[in-house]
Amino acid sequence: MSMTTPSIAEPKTGSKRIYNFSAGPAVLPEEVLKQAQHDIWDVANSGIGVCEHSHRGKVFDHILAEAEADCRTLAEIGDDYAVLFLQGGASLQFAMLPMNFLNTDKTADYLHTGEWTKKAINEAKLFGNVNVAFDGGSSSFDHVPAANEINASDNAAYTFYCSNNTIYGTEYPSTPSSAAPLVCDASSDIFSRPAEANKHALIFAGAQKNLGPAGCTLVIIRKDLLESANTPLSQMLDYRMHVAKGSRLNTPPAFAIYMMGLVFKWIIDQGGLTEIAQRNRDKAGIIYEAIDGSGGFYKGVARPDSRSLMNVTFRTPNDDLDKRFIDEALSNDMSGLKGHRSAGGLRASIYNAFPKAGCEALAQFMKNFAQRNG
Amino acid sequence: MSMTTPSIAEPKTGSKRIYNFSAGPAVLPEEVLKQAQHDIWDVANSGIGVCEHSHRGKVFDHILAEAEADCRTLAEIGDDYAVLFLQGGASLQFAMLPMNFLNTDKTADYLHTGEWTKKAINEAKLFGNVNVAFDGGSSSFDHVPAANEINASDNAAYTFYCSNNTIYGTEYPSTPSSAAPLVCDASSDIFSRPAEANKHALIFAGAQKNLGPAGCTLVIIRKDLLESANTPLSQMLDYRMHVAKGSRLNTPPAFAIYMMGLVFKWIIDQGGLTEIAQRNRDKAGIIYEAIDGSGGFYKGVARPDSRSLMNVTFRTPNDDLDKRFIDEALSNDMSGLKGHRSAGGLRASIYNAFPKAGCEALAQFMKNFAQRNG
Repeated sequence: MSMTTPSIAEPKTGSKRIYNFSAGPAVLPEEVLKQAQHDIWDVANSGIGVCEHSHRGKVFDHILAEAEADCRTLAEIGDDYAVLFLQGGASLQFAMLPMNFLNTDKTADYLHTGEWTKKAINEAKLFGNVNVAFDGGSSSFDHVPAANEINASDNAAYTFYCSNNTIYGTEYPSTPSSAAPLVCDASSDIFSRPAEANKHALIFAGAQKNLGPAGCTLVIIRKDLLESANTPLSQMLDYRMHVAKGSRLNTPPAFAIYMMGLVFKWIIDQGGLTEIAQRNRDKAGIIYEAIDGSGGFYKGVARPDSRSLMNVTFRTPNDDLDKRFIDEALSNDMSGLKGHRSAGGLRASIYNAFPKAGCEALAQFMKNFAQRNG
Repeated sequence: MSMTTPSIAEPKTGSKRIYNFSAGPAVLPEEVLKQAQHDIWDVANSGIGVCEHSHRGKVFDHILAEAEADCRTLAEIGDDYAVLFLQGGASLQFAMLPMNFLNTDKTADYLHTGEWTKKAINEAKLFGNVNVAFDGGSSSFDHVPAANEINASDNAAYTFYCSNNTIYGTEYPSTPSSAAPLVCDASSDIFSRPAEANKHALIFAGAQKNLGPAGCTLVIIRKDLLESANTPLSQMLDYRMHVAKGSRLNTPPAFAIYMMGLVFKWIIDQGGLTEIAQRNRDKAGIIYEAIDGSGGFYKGVARPDSRSLMNVTFRTPNDDLDKRFIDEALSNDMSGLKGHRSAGGLRASIYNAFPKAGCEALAQFMKNFAQRNG
């Protein structure tokens, strides 16, 4: 990491990369990394690197416009939605959402499926009334709610859900229905399948799992929602201001937006969200098959009907074996398989950019490990 | 910019870079860019790129710890201060500051020296009382206040100033004195000279001028200030939470922090802030000399005793010549010389990473341009 290592002068793209199962920040497409290596020095033949351009100049105008246009293509949305590139992660969205759209005269419905919805609920309570319309805690967050498990309130300001829960490895198999405006924290499965953005009033997602590096939050918001927003608010916390200024209320996280733009193009190049969804089903299937075919050696954490295609959570027969699994996997060039600190066990995060060959390698390793330790 | 250009495969570090006078995001040290080109593919021989590591893993632990330690070295601060790497830019700090430390029973003093302090004042008014202790608007923001121009209130919650004003090209020659806790927006001259952090209760700075790419905000805060903070606040807007979690309350902007860490090391390698300050005086001196020695062809915007060493603002005899100057400079590989849209004229931004040779080239061009158009 020292700046004086001899490795500085020659960027190497041939060096060995390992299978990175990190839950986020997570693996990025190698084509995107190679393009970034080039553009950090000189983007678009401008003689200036991508991190060094004015956010009001023509080069960044183009980067931002392309990222937005490609996002609209993927989300299949028109001008009735705004696309924003903000800062602060999903955690700041947990606060901005109720700050803008909730107050003490209103109630919002929250579908509680784990750590992230808990944080969102706590933020909402600072601003107005919260109805926990589903509480997954009573079943250790092993599943997402079926329609008949949701106790919606009358005239909710909005219904909030988290489409994929990284920690417990659960994911909604389809978009839940709601009479109130539907708000989704899609941080960990955005654009892993067709987005059904039109069923939502607001979707937000931190970039660092499926979209790019950490430091940018994608927000897709139906413009009519803005009419009911609270006022006055701090400018940086006011969706209306960001929409009015087209994500350039202040200096945006330019490099992260640039990278997201490259990832959008990469997804389009792969065949779009329908093709990506098929690949993700195939990839996750390989690992779930290794769990289910292990004769009980491995146990999945999530209930089968709520299994995530992004984060496969499972356990060996005991904690010692979990630890040995992680260590041996790492020495086989498979990194990041430890479960979240609040859930324990094992977790394989296999977002869009994670290669199928890595899932096959893990499944093979799992089989071998079970034979040796079963 | 297309991902399918043939240039993807081979990062080129030999291609021509031009003199980039952008006010921000701005030029970065070339040594830093080369290191980043390498580490984007594989950092610290981990087989994983710097954008792809978990923010809770050992590699990022090391990046964050080194960035903080090097920042402490440069700022000459001890454990009575916290160093934070946040998101949202200076603009979110404009809101967080009064949200945390002002209320309707308190008054804060603001020294108003331009567009940025105006935004800060407007945010503060949402939360409590503001005393504009100096208003530079009556002199078109051509100078920063002398001590006898500041009308401090009794028992102010804090005194706010902006150490360098990018738009008008003014800069405090030294830290102003204040009986109240002193808060500085140092976004555009942080670490351009010894920081005198110990004279401040809070310093914040967006990274994109002197510290790195856009998307990270450095906050240096004296811990005793936290005792007077308002509560409860949204977690992401609460300095206490960020301090308690060491900048990892949620996923931090990892790449921007990594880049800031490289820039800190670069500054240290150059000889530290005293040496950097001397270079900045030399660099700015070259351009101010070209202005003052032009026989009146060029006029400086800032009053000489308030001239910025970061942003040199000036004008030719008329708007048409300003425009011709910008166009001809660009065709001579000098970019970004147009003044801010709210001030007009010309502006040469010459932050730490801007090379002296570029200042000499500009001065030569200015002399030539004046001879041809005088």
